[in-house]
Parts: sequence; C-alpha cells; structure tokens
Amino acid sequence: MRRMNAAASDAAGNTAPKKDPWDLPDVSGMTVGVLGGTGDQGRGLAYRLARGGMAVTVGSRAAERARQAAEEIGHGVEGVDNAECARRSDIVIVAVPWEGHAKTVESLREELRGKLVVDCVNPLGFDKKGAYALVPEEGSAAEQAAALLPESRVTAAFHHLSAVLLSDPEVEEIATDVMVLGEKRADCEIVQALAARIPGMRGVFAGRLRNAHQVESLVANLISVNRRYKAHAGVRLTDI
Amino acid sequence: MRRMNAAASDAAGNTAPKKDPWDLPDVSGMTVGVLGGTGDQGRGLAYRLARGGMAVTVGSRAAERARQAAEEIGHGVEGVDNAECARRSDIVIVAVPWEGHAKTVESLREELRGKLVVDCVNPLGFDKKGAYALVPEEGSAAEQAAALLPESRVTAAFHHLSAVLLSDPEVEEIATDVMVLGEKRADCEIVQALAARIPGMRGVFAGRLRNAHQVESLVANLISVNRRYKAHAGVRLTDI
Repeated sequence: MRRMNAAASDAAGNTAPKKDPWDLPDVSGMTVGVLGGTGDQGRGLAYRLARGGMAVTVGSRAAERARQAAEEIGHGVEGVDNAECARRSDIVIVAVPWEGHAKTVESLREELRGKLVVDCVNPLGFDKKGAYALVPEEGSAAEQAAALLPESRVTAAFHHLSAVLLSDPEVEEIATDVMVLGEKRADCEIVQALAARIPGMRGVFAGRLRNAHQVESLVANLISVNRRYKAHAGVRLTDI
Repeated sequence: MRRMNAAASDAAGNTAPKKDPWDLPDVSGMTVGVLGGTGDQGRGLAYRLARGGMAVTVGSRAAERARQAAEEIGHGVEGVDNAECARRSDIVIVAVPWEGHAKTVESLREELRGKLVVDCVNPLGFDKKGAYALVPEEGSAAEQAAALLPESRVTAAFHHLSAVLLSDPEVEEIATDVMVLGEKRADCEIVQALAARIPGMRGVFAGRLRNAHQVESLVANLISVNRRYKAHAGVRLTDI
C-alpha cells in the first residue's frame, strides 16, 4: 500500500498540506445499523463489523426476526425493526433486496434524515444464462436512494463482498477492497474507515454516485467468475 | 492462484474430467492485430504483446501513421492500414476511440469475418466533474461490435489497463487481471491466454457480452481512483 506524504508540495510549489487519502477518521465510536440485516449480505456485514468492534444493530420489517438474527450473529449485535434501526444509528447500511429497495428507503425518510446512508444493493436479474444488470430509472440503486432521501447523506459501498466469506467465522481476513462512492468527501471517508474495520479490507474512494451503476452491477460478472473458478471472488484495486 | 484438479469428480459422483479453468490454449503462433494501434491504449497493448513474443500488427486509418507507430514500438511490430491489419490477423483487438467505434467496425465487416475480435473500448463521457459512463444503444461497445459483426467472434477484454504502465519499458510486470467476456468458451480462452502473455497478467473469464457494459464503464471509477490516489489503478480479482 502506497502512503503519500501528507505535507508534500505540488508541482506549482503550493506548500499547503495535501490530504493523505489513507488518513481516515476514527469511526470506532459510531453506531452502525443494517437495514435488511436478516438477509445473507446484511447479516454477514453486521457480523464482520461487530467482530471488528463496532456497535451494530440489525433491522428487519419484523422486530422479532431482527432480534433472532442478532442473537445468532452475537458480538453484541441488537435487533429491532427497520425504523428503530435507522433512528439509533449514525451510519445506516441499506442491504435490502432490490425488489423492496425503493419502498423500504422511502418509508424511512424521516428516520434517515441527516444520517450517513450506505447503499450496498445490487440490482440484478437472473435467468437461465445467469445474472445480468438491471438498470434502475435513476441510474443505480444508490441514485434511487439519493433521490428518495434528499435530506440524507447517501453513499454506496460494500457491493462486492461474498456473503459466504463474511459469515464464515473461520475466515479471519477478507483481503479485498471496498469501492466507496459518494458526493461528499467527508462522508466517503467515514465509510472507507468503516470498511477498514474488517481485517484485510480497504475502503477506496471510487467516484461519484453517477458512477455507481457499474460498481453495483459488476456483481453479475463476479457471479460468472465464481461459477467458472469455484470461488468467492472479490475485487482488489492495484497500484494503490 | 488456485489450481483445480482437472479430473476431479463432482458431488454427484460424475467422474467425467472437469476442465481446469486455468488450462488455456497455446496462442504463441497466432497473429494479433490492433485497430487504432496509434492511440495510447492500442499502442501500449501492441508493445506489451509484441514484447511478450506475439506477432503484432498495428492498424490505423492512414497506413503511414501506422508504420510510424510500429517503428516507434519496435519488437517487430508492423504498421498497415486498418483493413490490411484485420485481414492478416487471427485475433483483432479493437482499440479505436468510442466516437469512431461503430463506423470503423462496420467498415471492416468483410475483413473481420470469422476473426476473433477483442473489443477493449470504454464508452465514456467527460465533464468538469470527471468521467462518466455512456450507454450505447446496444448496451455496450462490445455488444455494438457483435451487432455490427454477425459473422465475427466478438469478445471484450483489456479495458482496465493503464496506457502509462503498458507503454513504460521500465515496467517489467503488470500485476493485474484482464476480465474477458464473450459467448463462446473457446474464444474467451484464447483471449485469456493472450492476456497471460504479458508478465503479471491473468486473463479471467468474467461473463457474457450482456455484462460488458459495467466492465467497460468501470474505467470511470478507475479514473476517480487514479485522481485521488495518484495511481495507475487496475483490477485484481481475489480468491481465484
């Protein structure tokens, strides 16, 4: 991993300190909610983040299902309904199925006001030839969330993680990168720092929300890779 | 790199030999053409493949420009006009700018008949906020090529390579993966083997052409990564 000199002067001789892109905020005191925390992806993320020392709440439409999932996950994870999950969390990960995405997000507009929302939904269709990208009217799931949540701070991340690896307690490290997209640098950096709580992972800034569609739908390609190579493929960005 | 047992029996007890996905054909005797071989990407690819021992021809609209580029590239590369480049090559890489993609491809329909075509074009737009994905009517540049070349064997690959790294003679290895997409396994495997001629690179099957758009447009994200991290980012797939 290349570390930059935080105080380097640029070619123009400007000596104002440059921000090291790997210098990320301390998020250890923040609370994390996972909407759709009873699904494979949400559950796996909740487990890894809690294991990484974060205070995590999983949400579900039915509080009882969330409580049950939380108990199975352990590591101090709590389970409540989606609205309460959103209310009590600083960072809210949206891990619901694409089919229920718009409805769930819209119904939580009040609870998500001002929150840092991390959309990790992959809009995919499946047929006998495998997976393929769906194209949301707004461009991507993340842009749909941003359109429905004008008073939230919407980012996108955690698309390429294998639920199998996330949930396997024998797996100590997940050597992969989390591409983080968003409009505000400070928000993205919080999400990058959150990803880095999971051993082996780096959170890498990878553009604005208008470039979220290809990141979301790359999962269709990872599914093809997994089938061909009998793997749980993830993505590492090279040269950084 | 995980190597699979080529003769493993599957869970159902089927003992027919399974094909090792890393067992790729020998392409050392094939000839490679690069249409748009005078541009940065085409030139860099031609250089790396020729340096990797392949017989490479670069094409351009003007034969004289192609000859000049070939001379600068060295390693036995020859330069001819695009039509002659297509005619004399077994594998034809399309590395023209997106703006001229449809026109160039269509004009070479005869010469490309039966050829293995490798589209590496990234349809991107640029504005003051950076790069963003363009959406071709056919879904992707590769699908556009496939539609225009019904009698060619169209694949897509080589999207995520830095022209700077490709062209730098001091760079010995480029440790990155080449995602290869296509409809026919045998064709994809030739392209995968071609990618593996470049030290450090692996060619990885990553799905059908209908999933090419996100692979092509992921370059917009890599451009954001490059800007933030002062890098020449590429992609490695993990767990394979």
